[in-house]
Amino acid sequence: MSKQEKLQSEVVERPDDMEVEPPTEPHTHIQPFEFLKIDDNVEERTALMILNQSLHGLNLRALWKRTNIHICADGGANQLFDYFQDKTNESSTALREQYIPNYIVGDFDSLRDDVRSYYEIRGTRVIEQTSQYSTDFMKAMSTIQLHFHSDTSRKHLREGEINNNNGIDVYLDTIKIVPSEQSDIKIYILSGIGGRFDQTIHSISQLYQLNSSHSHLQLFFLTKDDLIFLLKKGKNYISYPAKSSFHHARKVPVCGLLPLGNSTIMLSSYGLKYDVSNWESRIAGNVSSSNGLSGINGVIVDSSDPIVMNIEINLELS
Amino acid sequence: MSKQEKLQSEVVERPDDMEVEPPTEPHTHIQPFEFLKIDDNVEERTALMILNQSLHGLNLRALWKRTNIHICADGGANQLFDYFQDKTNESSTALREQYIPNYIVGDFDSLRDDVRSYYEIRGTRVIEQTSQYSTDFMKAMSTIQLHFHSDTSRKHLREGEINNNNGIDVYLDTIKIVPSEQSDIKIYILSGIGGRFDQTIHSISQLYQLNSSHSHLQLFFLTKDDLIFLLKKGKNYISYPAKSSFHHARKVPVCGLLPLGNSTIMLSSYGLKYDVSNWESRIAGNVSSSNGLSGINGVIVDSSDPIVMNIEINLELS
Repeated sequence: MSKQEKLQSEVVERPDDMEVEPPTEPHTHIQPFEFLKIDDNVEERTALMILNQSLHGLNLRALWKRTNIHICADGGANQLFDYFQDKTNESSTALREQYIPNYIVGDFDSLRDDVRSYYEIRGTRVIEQTSQYSTDFMKAMSTIQLHFHSDTSRKHLREGEINNNNGIDVYLDTIKIVPSEQSDIKIYILSGIGGRFDQTIHSISQLYQLNSSHSHLQLFFLTKDDLIFLLKKGKNYISYPAKSSFHHARKVPVCGLLPLGNSTIMLSSYGLKYDVSNWESRIAGNVSSSNGLSGINGVIVDSSDPIVMNIEINLELS
Repeated sequence: MSKQEKLQSEVVERPDDMEVEPPTEPHTHIQPFEFLKIDDNVEERTALMILNQSLHGLNLRALWKRTNIHICADGGANQLFDYFQDKTNESSTALREQYIPNYIVGDFDSLRDDVRSYYEIRGTRVIEQTSQYSTDFMKAMSTIQLHFHSDTSRKHLREGEINNNNGIDVYLDTIKIVPSEQSDIKIYILSGIGGRFDQTIHSISQLYQLNSSHSHLQLFFLTKDDLIFLLKKGKNYISYPAKSSFHHARKVPVCGLLPLGNSTIMLSSYGLKYDVSNWESRIAGNVSSSNGLSGINGVIVDSSDPIVMNIEINLELS
């Protein structure tokens, strides 16, 4: 919302810190900062996807450690390779050797030859998919689904003969995944938002579309400024260990609720710095930007339709 | 659109270059790259607005030369100041002296004291507006309108007594600007898009809202990757001198048509790499991303409602 709307009647200003109990009614529970846990257990169904924009300033290495598989979409592999160019205080080539992705997929109009062969001889499965019926983002998403579906599909992906036009999607179609029968897969995406604006909006479009068609896929876009994800229709409980775990500087990390799904949204919240109730939100009207998290361990957002949320982060890079 | 939709029936693939005549019917004419002209004439009603995100990689100095007034929204002044920190091949302090903004406005929760006094003693008019009823972006926009409205309003802005809560907006309200009676004002905005995602969407929300309420304001958001602006409802002719003038590397600069305005849009185009006709576009469905400009000097887009367009740029920095 603009600061103006914050002061209107359906908006309440909260203290910087407040207790928020999880809802007792049915709700969607989202834990966006699980990737920051510092134990050594890696959740099985987690993936890191790297797209083709600079990784500069991103917490790549922490995220890598916390995710089970790592996949580059086309020129994303160039970005991964180049990321280790400027680490001057360690041998960059030695460090690069430790970050070998499981897969590189795409139409390869961007992938450099030197990068391809570097990763290929180190065990990366490189799968060319020349079809122009889907984007590199969508090809990487299909690969992740196949990887986690079964031992058979994983083996096929790793070793099988895959038609280099659209073999991944053809194989995925034969499997007929039923989202409601699947355990969730968490997918963290680097460089999907913040570069060329049509790519940013393609990412947001995918976020909405996959929520309808593949509800077991939980997407989290990470930029150097924030984490971006979708809240579901209905009551959402967004929880975290402590605000200081993802923002080292602010007592009230900034957040926004962004109605990008082409409908007017009715919002109610509990635990935001400027809590709203029955607040109508749309792009050409009220938008809750520059809001903040007051809830010590979580906030509740009730939305009449899926809505994008972003939370500011400020992490030490390692 | 995803690459898939490009191949459907209402989509035609064009050659890389094609002639596009201006429409003969009534249309909105948009010339997004006028700021790249190399003559020394500066259009009178042009402004540069700088927001609070890093200016690294942006073509600040070229844009400065081509705009008549320069305004920093709150911490945008810090960014301007810091921009000249890392120019190692010239004396940064000498260079900084040449880029003194006309105005700094905002609630000043970000403006550094050293930056404020640096610019203030060099003639910048620094106007604190503590009101939380509007954002720093909106305060800067009001200042630009007052500056260009009349000699009287400009004098008031420069020298008058302005209530430090919301004096600018109070004064603007008394003037009652009628957009249809005003000449257009072109406003180039740096750092409005590409940083924290809720700020990006606040910028987009303002783009749609000002188009309704202040149709004489033409906003252009410049990032290091692209230029972003709004097409009007109806026929739009987007023209440019040559594609090479704003993209030094690609024969077909990438563009997108992004339906962010909370409605489903019907699109037709002429001169895009993937031209569409009667093509339904919405965020949770078809979105024309990764499209391109084939028209040698322009393209035509007919839209059932206002829609955001972005065009990739690749400029030599100077």
